[in-house]
Order: sequence, then C-alpha cells, then structure tokens
Amino acid sequence: MSKTEIPSKEKLLAISVSIKPYIHHTPVLHSASLDKLSGSRLLFKCENFQKTGSFKIRGAMNAVLSLTPEERKKGIITHSSGNFAQAAAYAAGCLGVKAKIVMPQNVVPAKRDAVLGYGAEIIYSGDLPGDREEKCHAEQKISGAAFIHPSNDINVITGHSSCAIEFINDNEPLDAVFVPVGGGGLISGIACGFAAISPDTKVIGGEPAGADDAYQSIQAGFIIPQTSPQTIADGLRTSLGDITFPIIRELVNEIVTVSEEEIISAMRLIWQRMKIIVEPSSAVAFAAFLKRTADFKNKSVGIILSGGNVNIDDLPF
Amino acid sequence: MSKTEIPSKEKLLAISVSIKPYIHHTPVLHSASLDKLSGSRLLFKCENFQKTGSFKIRGAMNAVLSLTPEERKKGIITHSSGNFAQAAAYAAGCLGVKAKIVMPQNVVPAKRDAVLGYGAEIIYSGDLPGDREEKCHAEQKISGAAFIHPSNDINVITGHSSCAIEFINDNEPLDAVFVPVGGGGLISGIACGFAAISPDTKVIGGEPAGADDAYQSIQAGFIIPQTSPQTIADGLRTSLGDITFPIIRELVNEIVTVSEEEIISAMRLIWQRMKIIVEPSSAVAFAAFLKRTADFKNKSVGIILSGGNVNIDDLPF
Repeated sequence: MSKTEIPSKEKLLAISVSIKPYIHHTPVLHSASLDKLSGSRLLFKCENFQKTGSFKIRGAMNAVLSLTPEERKKGIITHSSGNFAQAAAYAAGCLGVKAKIVMPQNVVPAKRDAVLGYGAEIIYSGDLPGDREEKCHAEQKISGAAFIHPSNDINVITGHSSCAIEFINDNEPLDAVFVPVGGGGLISGIACGFAAISPDTKVIGGEPAGADDAYQSIQAGFIIPQTSPQTIADGLRTSLGDITFPIIRELVNEIVTVSEEEIISAMRLIWQRMKIIVEPSSAVAFAAFLKRTADFKNKSVGIILSGGNVNIDDLPF
Repeated sequence: MSKTEIPSKEKLLAISVSIKPYIHHTPVLHSASLDKLSGSRLLFKCENFQKTGSFKIRGAMNAVLSLTPEERKKGIITHSSGNFAQAAAYAAGCLGVKAKIVMPQNVVPAKRDAVLGYGAEIIYSGDLPGDREEKCHAEQKISGAAFIHPSNDINVITGHSSCAIEFINDNEPLDAVFVPVGGGGLISGIACGFAAISPDTKVIGGEPAGADDAYQSIQAGFIIPQTSPQTIADGLRTSLGDITFPIIRELVNEIVTVSEEEIISAMRLIWQRMKIIVEPSSAVAFAAFLKRTADFKNKSVGIILSGGNVNIDDLPF
C-alpha cells in the first residue's frame, strides 16, 4: 500500500473476537525484583505461554479465518524455519484446511515434529531464506494454495493486534510498550492496536544490532533488506516488507538496537528472576528497555515476551 | 508427639489468612499437551513463582509470626543450604526480626547473596548436614535465638498448609495431589490441608530413589534417617523428623520413588511444554505421577511444583 491504512478500532476488536476461541488469553506477569532493578513498573505479556509457544498463532489464525470458502478448499502454503511454521500448521488444522509448510532441510527436529503433529505437510527446501521463498512460490503455482506470508500480510498483522488489545484491557494504562522486531509483523500489529485504543502509549522496537534492518530502513526512509544476520535471536533474522515498513515508520516511536551480550544477559535475568522460559527474541525487547530505563523511572512499561520455543540442549549460558 | 494431632480446619484457615499479606497467591497452570500425554486433567500449583522462589516462605512466615514478642526480640536461627535459608531470611526481614542462618562454606554464591540481600547474618559451618545442625545448636545456646527447623516444626508445616488451601479453593475437586518429599514439611502441610478441607483427595508423595528415607521409613514403621543421599533433587536430601513422620504415616496414601533419569525427563517435559522453570525437586512430584498415569485416566490431578531455584549454568540437559 502506498499510504499506511491503519485498521480501525472496530475492525481490530472484531478480529480479536473471531480468533479468541482458538488461542490463549495470555497472562501478564510482574516481578518485584525487576521493578526494583529498573525503577519502573514492568508488565510482561507472556506470549511464551501462547498456543504453539509464540504469538504467531494470532496472525496465522486470522489469516486462515480470512480465507474464502473456495480458498480454504485449496489449502494454504507458507515458508518458515521457526514459529510461524507451527502456528500456520495448527491454525489450518483447527479449521480442517490443508497446509503445506516449506522448511529448510536443516530444521530443528522438534519443530519439524510439531508441524507434522498438527497434520501439515512439509516441503523441504535449501537452507537459505531465498531458497524457501523460491520453493514456496513454485509449489504455490502448482497447487493454487493461498500463500500466507509469516509477517508481511495484513491479516497476520491485524491478528497480532489482538495481543495489544488483551494487554490494554487487562492492565493500567502503559506509558510505553517494548516489542521485538524481526519481519515486523508483531510490532506492526501491536502498534496498530495501541494506535487505535491507547494512542498515548509509546511503541518502541527492540532489534539485534546484528540484524538491524528495521533500524537502518527507518533511518534511510526505504527498506534495506537484511542480508547476513548475525544474532542468537533466530526469530528476528528476517527483513521488513512493503506492508510492515510503512506501518512501523508511521506508528513506532523508536527502534533500539542491542548487542548479543545484552540479549543473553536480558534472557538470563528473565529466566532467573521470573522463572519462565523465553526465547532469545523475547529477551531482545527487554534488553532494549534496559537501555532506556532512565526514560521510564516510576512509569508503567509493557514488555512483549514473544515466545518460549528454545532448544534447552543448546543454551547460551 | 506420640499421636498425630491433625490441626483443625479453623486453625489452618486462620494461619492462611495471617500469612497472606507476605506471600504470593500462586497461579495454577494447565497444559493441553501434558493432559493429552497423560490422559488426566493436570493442575500445576506454581510455587516456583512464590516469593523467594519456593513454597518455603509459607512455613517460615508462619513460624516467625508465631513467635512471642520476647522471642522476636532475640531473633531466629536456622540451618539450611537451600530454599529455607532465603525464606527464613525474608520472613524475618518482613517483621524486623534478626535472623542468623547457618550455611555450609560451599554454598552457591547466588543463594548466599539472596540471604544477605534480605538482611540476615550468615554463620558458616562445615559442608555436611550434621555440621550445620551442630553449629546451629551451639550458636543458639549462646544467643538465645529461637530455633526454627526447616521442616520438622509444626508452625512451618501448618504454614505450608496454606498452599493446599489455595489449591482447593481455586479449582475443581482433585482426585489426587502429588507432592515432593524431602524433610517432609511440605507434604505434611499439604496432607493436613487436604485432610481438613478435601479429605477425598489422595495425597501421594514423590521421592528420589537415591534419597528414599520416607519410603523406607513408612515400610519399616519407624524413622530411618537418610545417610548418603544420591540425587540431583537437592531439596530432597534430608530426613523425616518426629513431627513429619507420624503425619505422613497417617495422612499420605503412598510414596512413589523415582529414578534420576525419571526426574530429569520430567523436569525437561515441564520446561519444554509449560515454558516455566522448576527445580529438580519439583520435577520429582511430576515424575511420580508419570509412573501412576494408569490409575488416573480422566481424573483431576494436582501437582505441586515446589520451587524454581535452579542454577541455570549447571543444568542436567
């Protein structure tokens, strides 16, 4: 879209209601020790407890629900090496829609098994993101299945807005909310939700310095694709798209980049103090907040913990 | 006591109310995937989210609240290498009571720092449990401080009953509840709570095969002390006492022993499926349930997750 069309409050609320039967209303946790450490009142939105282990089910579910009856018959296709694969497989399975998921040959076995367990078909591609996309489009042409992009899809984005709606309804007004930035689907959805319902809340992105395409793109004013991401935050290695970029440019106040050491240290703090398991991508949002504590003394700050799918046999500590 | 005196419902409810301002009312979590795996409806009582990271604060708080004004002036003393040290330090700190904690020289630095952070004094002893007890009694004679045993103390036990009361009030009736057994303070408190309020619920202990003094003691009909415990479940290496043993003998239906492999496998399942951090001692209760799934098909089963204080730099997986 040439100009950003921010979805209306009514539309976002309707989407939130339609996906509600299929997802968890996730809890918001507090930590007295992290409040003390930071000087803020922190509210952690726990999408690590979400169905399929991440927020991705929100967008995937809305995308599948948005298909016409004709499209549903032909099934869906997507590509993902991570959380969107499981989410799309689960969402399609809920509605009896066939799903083909293009995944790299070197996919983690646990993720492969989860996708198969939800009844989806896996199509293997080469290991580079470009390989997956190419394979996906070729397969899509053959089968006529509806392609759902993991982040750059307006139905996926507005599905993610339901996370913001729950967060706003369940809590006191937030002065700011910190969100991880990868392909930009989550932060676009969160930003649309807050813009529609709680426009005074600042929306701030956290991005790995080793995969800072969103930060670079915002500075440049045009999309600079991510070429060789170097980060432990495996959910944040992808690029912004032509739908997410203008939303972020218009609605996100700032993007804060963080080092790998800051990501690991933030992840460690959450594990140790909150006794919950979050993946490195979730820790990126908290790490970004930890660089901005001076700006939020005695304020209420939301942190989106995006997921908990981490390989516990291969931890950074 | 020669005959077990089970505390009345009224007494337990009053204790539960008196400690309420100082502790967390912990959440109960479900897991669709673990329900599916086991064929039961599982309810996990999350004491890993409790203040100081374990259920121990419940008993410690009640013990300190039960002191006379004279006793409070002289302070408290206890011995612990683990969770009770932090709990006693925190409880005493809440009420402005001095606390001396006897800990082994080789205590984990994080636990030492937590105790000091709560304002308690640490007295170092040798590394064996016997060394701690000896040092503790010698110090107690000098200072006149009130000694609080980490498990074999009726105020500690009835404080822990508050966990059962929350569990019963918050949920559907439970067919059984699985509880880890170490010194027996937790399971005694839980058993008293269920006996008073939900007597049809079976109370089942989980104990490491490598520290099975409770199992052996129940079989023998007298206390067989734990001599050389061999288990990763560091909270469960201690022995039953003359207060906990008769309560367990009267009120606990069965004690199920589990291997180290079963403990680690159960801990892994909880971490991976529930995205929460529990210590090995907590996993022992779940491991015990997993050996009894055939008995509880389609039934409601509670699992007490006793704590989340685990050294994430030294994991068994």
